[in-house]
Amino acid sequence: MKKEFVVIGLGRFGGSIVKELIELEADVMAIDKSQERVDEFANIATQAVAVDTTDEAALRSLGIRNFEHVVIAIGENIQASILTTLILKEIGVSRITVKAQNDYHEKVLRKIGADQVVHPERDMGKRIANNLVSNNILDYLELSDEYSIVEIQANDHLAGSSLIDLDIRAKFGVNIVAIKRGTHILVSPQAIEQIEVNDILIVIGSDLDIHRFERKALH
Amino acid sequence: MKKEFVVIGLGRFGGSIVKELIELEADVMAIDKSQERVDEFANIATQAVAVDTTDEAALRSLGIRNFEHVVIAIGENIQASILTTLILKEIGVSRITVKAQNDYHEKVLRKIGADQVVHPERDMGKRIANNLVSNNILDYLELSDEYSIVEIQANDHLAGSSLIDLDIRAKFGVNIVAIKRGTHILVSPQAIEQIEVNDILIVIGSDLDIHRFERKALH
Amino acid sequence: MKKEFVVIGLGRFGGSIVKELIELEADVMAIDKSQERVDEFANIATQAVAVDTTDEAALRSLGIRNFEHVVIAIGENIQASILTTLILKEIGVSRITVKAQNDYHEKVLRKIGADQVVHPERDMGKRIANNLVSNNILDYLELSDEYSIVEIQANDHLAGSSLIDLDIRAKFGVNIVAIKRGTHILVSPQAIEQIEVNDILIVIGSDLDIHRFERKALH
Amino acid sequence: MKKEFVVIGLGRFGGSIVKELIELEADVMAIDKSQERVDEFANIATQAVAVDTTDEAALRSLGIRNFEHVVIAIGENIQASILTTLILKEIGVSRITVKAQNDYHEKVLRKIGADQVVHPERDMGKRIANNLVSNNILDYLELSDEYSIVEIQANDHLAGSSLIDLDIRAKFGVNIVAIKRGTHILVSPQAIEQIEVNDILIVIGSDLDIHRFERKALH
Amino acid sequence: MKKEFVVIGLGRFGGSIVKELIELEADVMAIDKSQERVDEFANIATQAVAVDTTDEAALRSLGIRNFEHVVIAIGENIQASILTTLILKEIGVSRITVKAQNDYHEKVLRKIGADQVVHPERDMGKRIANNLVSNNILDYLELSDEYSIVEIQANDHLAGSSLIDLDIRAKFGVNIVAIKRGTHILVSPQAIEQIEVNDILIVIGSDLDIHRFERKALH
Amino acid sequence: MKKEFVVIGLGRFGGSIVKELIELEADVMAIDKSQERVDEFANIATQAVAVDTTDEAALRSLGIRNFEHVVIAIGENIQASILTTLILKEIGVSRITVKAQNDYHEKVLRKIGADQVVHPERDMGKRIANNLVSNNILDYLELSDEYSIVEIQANDHLAGSSLIDLDIRAKFGVNIVAIKRGTHILVSPQAIEQIEVNDILIVIGSDLDIHRFERKALH
Amino acid sequence: MKKEFVVIGLGRFGGSIVKELIELEADVMAIDKSQERVDEFANIATQAVAVDTTDEAALRSLGIRNFEHVVIAIGENIQASILTTLILKEIGVSRITVKAQNDYHEKVLRKIGADQVVHPERDMGKRIANNLVSNNILDYLELSDEYSIVEIQANDHLAGSSLIDLDIRAKFGVNIVAIKRGTHILVSPQAIEQIEVNDILIVIGSDLDIHRFERKALH
Amino acid sequence: MKKEFVVIGLGRFGGSIVKELIELEADVMAIDKSQERVDEFANIATQAVAVDTTDEAALRSLGIRNFEHVVIAIGENIQASILTTLILKEIGVSRITVKAQNDYHEKVLRKIGADQVVHPERDMGKRIANNLVSNNILDYLELSDEYSIVEIQANDHLAGSSLIDLDIRAKFGVNIVAIKRGTHILVSPQAIEQIEVNDILIVIGSDLDIHRFERKALH
Repeated sequence: MKKEFVVIGLGRFGGSIVKELIELEADVMAIDKSQERVDEFANIATQAVAVDTTDEAALRSLGIRNFEHVVIAIGENIQASILTTLILKEIGVSRITVKAQNDYHEKVLRKIGADQVVHPERDMGKRIANNLVSNNILDYLELSDEYSIVEIQANDHLAGSSLIDLDIRAKFGVNIVAIKRGTHILVSPQAIEQIEVNDILIVIGSDLDIHRFERKALH
Repeated sequence: MKKEFVVIGLGRFGGSIVKELIELEADVMAIDKSQERVDEFANIATQAVAVDTTDEAALRSLGIRNFEHVVIAIGENIQASILTTLILKEIGVSRITVKAQNDYHEKVLRKIGADQVVHPERDMGKRIANNLVSNNILDYLELSDEYSIVEIQANDHLAGSSLIDLDIRAKFGVNIVAIKRGTHILVSPQAIEQIEVNDILIVIGSDLDIHRFERKALH
Repeated sequence: MKKEFVVIGLGRFGGSIVKELIELEADVMAIDKSQERVDEFANIATQAVAVDTTDEAALRSLGIRNFEHVVIAIGENIQASILTTLILKEIGVSRITVKAQNDYHEKVLRKIGADQVVHPERDMGKRIANNLVSNNILDYLELSDEYSIVEIQANDHLAGSSLIDLDIRAKFGVNIVAIKRGTHILVSPQAIEQIEVNDILIVIGSDLDIHRFERKALH
Repeated sequence: MKKEFVVIGLGRFGGSIVKELIELEADVMAIDKSQERVDEFANIATQAVAVDTTDEAALRSLGIRNFEHVVIAIGENIQASILTTLILKEIGVSRITVKAQNDYHEKVLRKIGADQVVHPERDMGKRIANNLVSNNILDYLELSDEYSIVEIQANDHLAGSSLIDLDIRAKFGVNIVAIKRGTHILVSPQAIEQIEVNDILIVIGSDLDIHRFERKALH
Repeated sequence: MKKEFVVIGLGRFGGSIVKELIELEADVMAIDKSQERVDEFANIATQAVAVDTTDEAALRSLGIRNFEHVVIAIGENIQASILTTLILKEIGVSRITVKAQNDYHEKVLRKIGADQVVHPERDMGKRIANNLVSNNILDYLELSDEYSIVEIQANDHLAGSSLIDLDIRAKFGVNIVAIKRGTHILVSPQAIEQIEVNDILIVIGSDLDIHRFERKALH
Repeated sequence: MKKEFVVIGLGRFGGSIVKELIELEADVMAIDKSQERVDEFANIATQAVAVDTTDEAALRSLGIRNFEHVVIAIGENIQASILTTLILKEIGVSRITVKAQNDYHEKVLRKIGADQVVHPERDMGKRIANNLVSNNILDYLELSDEYSIVEIQANDHLAGSSLIDLDIRAKFGVNIVAIKRGTHILVSPQAIEQIEVNDILIVIGSDLDIHRFERKALH
Repeated sequence: MKKEFVVIGLGRFGGSIVKELIELEADVMAIDKSQERVDEFANIATQAVAVDTTDEAALRSLGIRNFEHVVIAIGENIQASILTTLILKEIGVSRITVKAQNDYHEKVLRKIGADQVVHPERDMGKRIANNLVSNNILDYLELSDEYSIVEIQANDHLAGSSLIDLDIRAKFGVNIVAIKRGTHILVSPQAIEQIEVNDILIVIGSDLDIHRFERKALH
Repeated sequence: MKKEFVVIGLGRFGGSIVKELIELEADVMAIDKSQERVDEFANIATQAVAVDTTDEAALRSLGIRNFEHVVIAIGENIQASILTTLILKEIGVSRITVKAQNDYHEKVLRKIGADQVVHPERDMGKRIANNLVSNNILDYLELSDEYSIVEIQANDHLAGSSLIDLDIRAKFGVNIVAIKRGTHILVSPQAIEQIEVNDILIVIGSDLDIHRFERKALH
């Protein structure tokens, strides 16, 4: 199942989107103002074009209206990002995702019709800050303001005990939905499963309970 | 439980780390070369200092050795990023996380002793690309190369059926570990639980099975 | 009857608005990013302040919400013009007039809430082009796409004739609503009034009729 | 009846003159130093040439002497504007209109022989200031220092009354020379004509009387 | 006999005028835009002021109207040179000498009222070219297009002969008006005066005769 | 009699030397680093070449050794002026004249072998200062530190008198060596010659006597 | 015996290495980013190529792996120097010598695998400082922290004495290993050899003894 | 024994001279145009001053005439280097050493009176090239064009043999003047001395013989 995407702006962020989309076997037209950058993506993207996207006629000539989704990943130039969004909206593109620099930028983008506005550096900063504060928590998925699924590094305190011994749900109110053991994943592990050193526990629960579990069970 | 962090470089990425760490009630010293940026963080960080971090004497005078963890989030200046990492290593900082611009930069950082090297724009680009390709998958946590936990938007095809009706584990090999209904989270939902329109299903499984489930069950 | 205005951007266009408003006995706060320009207006405007208008806190501290009307006459910086408009809208300013650089700029401004968008150089270019093509037409007021009031320089062909002799309304379908004779204005001149050399006729009619009158009667 | 014009400088002001002259069916040679700007006007102007107008030989080779009227709309470069004016005067161009930046610039231009000097941003600033101070006055034509013709937005106070009822000439000393109703223009409306909501009155009179009328009759 | 001068522009040309005028015991106000240059002349000129001479108010405040003669020796900035000339003319300065860059610059200067326009590099180039072509001619004073007074280096061919022997006036049509012998000057030398080696002859005559004399008598 | 010159540096000073030498029928090779300037002299000089004169090989390839005299008129670049002089000296050019910027520059030039060093702006500044201080002295030739020949504008005080009446030599110790009357030159005027209004007297004498004559006889 | 070298960076330092290696009959590939510099070495080096050495693919295509030794003499760009070193290491170059700017730079280079790090300006500064302090010591070879071989200029005090007379080894503890007399070298001079004026003595000994010898014997 | 030096230019080369001179217990005044660099040397040099050395008055005020020796280590600015040399010569400094950029620079410096001209990067380039070509030769002292003293790394071929066994002087015509063994130096080693692995031989001889020895004995 192929899908059609346009990515405008081939910096580190936009470039990474193009590469990942291609790996996910999507069809991507990569656009940048600079011919040099476009050349880098000539053998990566389905199609790579050097175009100034604030030039409506140039954009139209690319048949951009036929694409499902356009991602505007323009780096520092707020003005170009706004004008490109406006023109794509005028052309009638159905879905537009735009990278914003700050809250004002986001507000302008939403008012002129951007469907999705993202802040990659800000979001990534948050993720990394979360990893930093609890060294045992390796990664996480935020379900709501209060609930998360987290990857917790098991340690000597836990190793050797079975899940039933630990009685985690009763003591901490969290569930272990999976265990990652080397390259293997145990989904819905059984109660008699023994935790081993280096296991990574995939735990679901409220943030409060997860932190209590992390602090108490692991120290 | 307070922890001590230093964040060097207060651009969008580094600034977001500072803000999130403070929200997580950590203790953060925010450092940037530009006084203007430091001023922005004077009321946010525990401490904010304008210092050129390639000046060893200046860094030492901040007592940086006493901090648990230093994050180097310097933007475009690869040379400053490398020299700062080296000096912190010489000073004896125990844990250093550095933002890299490209693979060469990462290799140099690792050789001179960086403990963790991150690529925020690249990683965020990947996340967003994944969201783009499957519109029903809202967010995900990659457990391994083959297994993930994903948030899937339920739709009319599923609404009204109970989990037992759908028999998802048997048909697709995936488990529903939670259901997000509005602001509420149902952990380990019971088999008789009926899916409602707008429910978000938290699903664990192999990527293959998840994609099969997404394509078949939802269309 | 005093009114309160803010003019942002003190270039030739914005500066001229400030001066004219002051002459019309209005109350004007003049704002520019450059202290140098602000100093020029210190003795002209009611109040003159150097502020970066893309800084929301700075704008709020000026109590800008209390002003009736804000004119954004920022020169070349489209980004600053857009962000300033957005911030003023957020603050709750009731009426905002903005100078646009081009059609895209105007569209963005309208979408984010500008009440009036002006193109001074373009409009002035049009006025001057109109004066250039008919040397006898000195100035004009466009009533609609088809009707105008114009100032036409009388010449030897007309001088000495009374309005009744010329029978202009019958022959050309236009009306002479006034005659400018030196520093004197004759409103609704009588039919027996004789046109003198150097009189300027204020004529109302359709553009077609006015041009016919100008070509036929004056040559 | 075609006329021949040269417009030098294709910025917003000069470009607007070219476009309007072409719409008025005049013949225009468009000149700019930048090839890029000239290319934009290649399909608009009768002829478009990239030439440095401070190079006398280049100007002469264009046969510029044969043109009726040259408009110098050079943007910021005062020196180029002065030298171009001087050279055109030397070549023997019969009529030269020049855009000035300030009063000194105007004085130099007049001394070296410019026939007409214009200040588009300043003049437009004045027009807009006038519109701003009286919200009901939409546009105006200044007949003399004391007399004007203005467009006034009628309102609920006037709607429903006939001109004879209002007795405007007696009460305020002004005349209604026309009424604009939607896209229609009523020239010299009859006394029994009833004013409707949204009518725009075209009023002639002294500025004092007009303002008195605007303040009293409409409030 | 003191005279009052203003010199504007303190580069090599203007600076040399200031120094020479001071040596000729004149009274000089030295003006430049750059404080650094003004400081160099603080102990040389009668008065030295840093002022932007395109600022009319600043110029007036110096009481420049009371000076007899203003020399504008502004280097490369044609616009500043023109505006300064115009402003001085407006202020009512009686005599203005200006350095021009080229013929167009000179024409503009003359039209706006410069009394004298000089081209120092061009004139000095001419002088030096003349010295170069006849190695024996050391310096010269051009009386008209055809007549000059020149300094000619005597040589072995002439040394030992008396003026009467050489019969220069009869043979070449030129007169020897003086002889420079070391630091001594013999005005109107007598006919029996013998020319010595290293004498410099001050000769008056037509250019043709002088060149004939130089070529024939000295070789 | 043709001579061969090279002029390096085609600014206002060097360019004027080239033009005057050509007018004096000399043979000139004109050199500049900038192709644009060289193009201007292509039809003026005998030969015009774009060459970086600090490149020894390039200079040698021009056969510059065969020229009699090289003039280095390089504008602001002291380093290029010094290196070019050195290289020409090494190549064996017989006579080198160089334009200096200041006294240090002159000293370096002399030490590395420049035959003649000139200061055109400084010398021209002196000439003009001298003209400025005595308005009646139009031009002058400095014979020694004490003696000059000057052109003095006659006036009403002298007009009508014969030279014998005025007895100038006895009263002031100066001689009139010629009278310039319109385009005519009277060499060694006779004693009975009457001075006319507008005559220009060519006077030789000591500076002291000339100034005494100028002050007394003319006022 | 030919050897193969690559020199990257053709400034004064790198360029001198290339020239000396070629004189020592080695085979050298000269590389610089700037085509202009590469052109200078086209006829000097065995091969000269313009390449950006931070581009791994470009470096590989030169077959750089086959060279014995690479010298990185990149001037000011620390980042380029580090990345080039890293890439060469990755490619598998066996021996890399790099010029460092400072101690931090050296440390980074060593950590990423540079085999030899040199500081040419610093080392040369040391050599010259040593020559400066003892005017009689012309050059030296540092054997260890305490021992050196030095070239000492003999003077009148020593001239005429034989080595046996002076008894240098006994008195000062140093040995004369050779005497340089004009272009001739006397290795292991005999005891009866008489020192002549202008002889240069090649002396081995501890630094202390050498300085004692220099101060005592020569003064 | 203290000596007095001035070092002008505190880059890597000049800075290294200052540091080494101070270590050799000399007295050094360090001068640079940049205050920042001067500050770095404030605690290193005897005295550190920020002065523009092309300003004669400033230089004189430092009493620079009283110093024995001035080293001009100015980096890239050839003009400043030349003018500084000239001014120091004029002031009467007895000994001046100057760093040159190229051969022309050196020639100018010598002509204006520099006593010693050095090319640090070029000389260091040569040293390093020599080390590169013979991996066993670690350092060297060039005695003449033909004779050197070199440090050669002994290897397995030589280890275990006594000097008398090897008979080096007879076979290769070179002498071993010392052996470096760890931190110890054996001057004039005895014939029975056995060479050990890792010994460094200090060898004197003609370059030809040394290379023969290096190739034959060590391989």
